[in-house]
Amino acid sequence: MFTLDPRLQADSTEVCTLDNVQVRLMNDARYWWLVLVPEVKDAVEWHHLEPDMQHRLFDLAAHSAGIVEELAAADKMNIAALGNMVRQLHVHVIARHEGDAAWPGPVWGVGESLDYEVPIRATRTQSLQALLQVR
Amino acid sequence: MFTLDPRLQADSTEVCTLDNVQVRLMNDARYWWLVLVPEVKDAVEWHHLEPDMQHRLFDLAAHSAGIVEELAAADKMNIAALGNMVRQLHVHVIARHEGDAAWPGPVWGVGESLDYEVPIRATRTQSLQALLQVR
Repeated sequence: MFTLDPRLQADSTEVCTLDNVQVRLMNDARYWWLVLVPEVKDAVEWHHLEPDMQHRLFDLAAHSAGIVEELAAADKMNIAALGNMVRQLHVHVIARHEGDAAWPGPVWGVGESLDYEVPIRATRTQSLQALLQVR
Repeated sequence: MFTLDPRLQADSTEVCTLDNVQVRLMNDARYWWLVLVPEVKDAVEWHHLEPDMQHRLFDLAAHSAGIVEELAAADKMNIAALGNMVRQLHVHVIARHEGDAAWPGPVWGVGESLDYEVPIRATRTQSLQALLQVR
């Protein structure tokens, strides 16, 4: 049975689940930052998934990148599966802006995450839910 | 007409071109590190490509990740499209090892790249060519 890694659970909040992939918003108000987590037991590497799930995860990453790009008015989107710290497979979809906290470097490990104000998180989550669910 | 970004040209060496995607080896002997560059004029974002090319690029990333994982005996594979510094669309496929120069952080911007010894680069390139071209 699939269970979400405790660190992903602690660091992010569920937006919705689509085709057995959890879409989660990272608890870091500095960025529009999603993680996509396929609900597949023991999954670590993207290319080890069944081909159908590999593509489903890619399509959702691409689709959500388009949505986040527009919501955030992003200068650049970052899509990445790293997993060096948390091995459970998760794909990052991150809106980047020139001059953001890590620009132009990658976001991981830079500075301290910034807590969301509750209404801002709620608004982002609702916008994402509305747009993701009308695929 | 497509032309390769000069920085990608300087930082990597061509391995082969498959389905209009260049597979290039980064000039940094610290890692088995590929970049995949679709030969599409002005491409910046993965999700802005035509759907067929989006998938071709993903399939090649997944396929080459499996090959590099085995050649490098990797502990973890990283697949990422960032493009914050070089906007021309390129997908990184990187073999990571516990204790490598950037572990467990991301590789970008960490330390100085290490020049290849010529025969080692040649061996890696030939292995990659042989395995990538028998898809």
